[in-house]
Amino acid sequence: MDAAVECLAELGWNGTTVGVIAERAGVSRGAAQHHFPTREQLVVAAVEFLTEEQIAELREQAAALPEGPSRAGPVARMLLNLYTGPKFRAALHLWVAASTDDALRAILAPLEAQVGREAHRMAVELLGVDESRQGVREIVQATLDLARGLGLANLLTDDTKRREQIARQWATLLEPMVAEGSGSAAAR
Amino acid sequence: MDAAVECLAELGWNGTTVGVIAERAGVSRGAAQHHFPTREQLVVAAVEFLTEEQIAELREQAAALPEGPSRAGPVARMLLNLYTGPKFRAALHLWVAASTDDALRAILAPLEAQVGREAHRMAVELLGVDESRQGVREIVQATLDLARGLGLANLLTDDTKRREQIARQWATLLEPMVAEGSGSAAAR
Repeated sequence: MDAAVECLAELGWNGTTVGVIAERAGVSRGAAQHHFPTREQLVVAAVEFLTEEQIAELREQAAALPEGPSRAGPVARMLLNLYTGPKFRAALHLWVAASTDDALRAILAPLEAQVGREAHRMAVELLGVDESRQGVREIVQATLDLARGLGLANLLTDDTKRREQIARQWATLLEPMVAEGSGSAAAR
Repeated sequence: MDAAVECLAELGWNGTTVGVIAERAGVSRGAAQHHFPTREQLVVAAVEFLTEEQIAELREQAAALPEGPSRAGPVARMLLNLYTGPKFRAALHLWVAASTDDALRAILAPLEAQVGREAHRMAVELLGVDESRQGVREIVQATLDLARGLGLANLLTDDTKRREQIARQWATLLEPMVAEGSGSAAAR
């Protein structure tokens, strides 16, 4: 799984074959093909697996944070850094390849929707916001779309400094929602 | 220029050659190569030209809008729809190709920075906000990063409905800044 994502991130969709991934993973091509007959199946499984892993990691990091509005800062940073690593690069190569490849798009579109829903659920949980309040759902969605946009801005150049300034401002914007969310949770 | 962007958006970087573009534009390959010896030069010129054109169009549309906080809604929609068409698709193919191609990256990175600055300047102007106020600059940047993230979300599936809901919420968030901006402009 790691080898598949590394290959995609470094070599792109055209450079990524089951053979190349198998070699990097130190397994035989036959063994890799036994589990994943096509590169589509292999890379989709890899993106799915590593996304779940990343979401689980974030949940673990966030578990150590206190409840209430002081979460807004660290959680905003976590979320806005979510798409700046090789996993996002790998997924981006897949998405862009799928935009001109109908077979790949048919596999990826449902996976994208599923991964999107899971990321959303995790963001709501990490922030501790109450989605039944007007506008909260859209701001959580905007947070993840912003994170993807920041991932894109980080593709060709290191955009860390600018991203940190945006995350600071984003935190002040999220803070009242986080306070309300945890307030209403405490009242329940 | 249009043919180059169409080819990129439909065929991706690998399918886009000076010959293919020339054929679509109805000119000879020799004529195209006289102006643009390499496909790198041709597509970069195309992305640059069409971005300027798009920014000019937005300025013209925005010129008809009234001053003050009522601008926030229509301008938020304009900006968040900015990266949902074939020009963004074309640019995305280039960025992703450049992430595994050092020669292309060396050409694109400065262009990306320049286009980013121009989009920022246009967003400030369209919104009529005052960037000297604390946090305004970051929220304008976040608006454009969000727009790019929404462009990405629109790549494989039509995301218009969700994007409109986010734009509505985004407008309420921008409104106080737009009001302050035009207020201070009037006071000067």
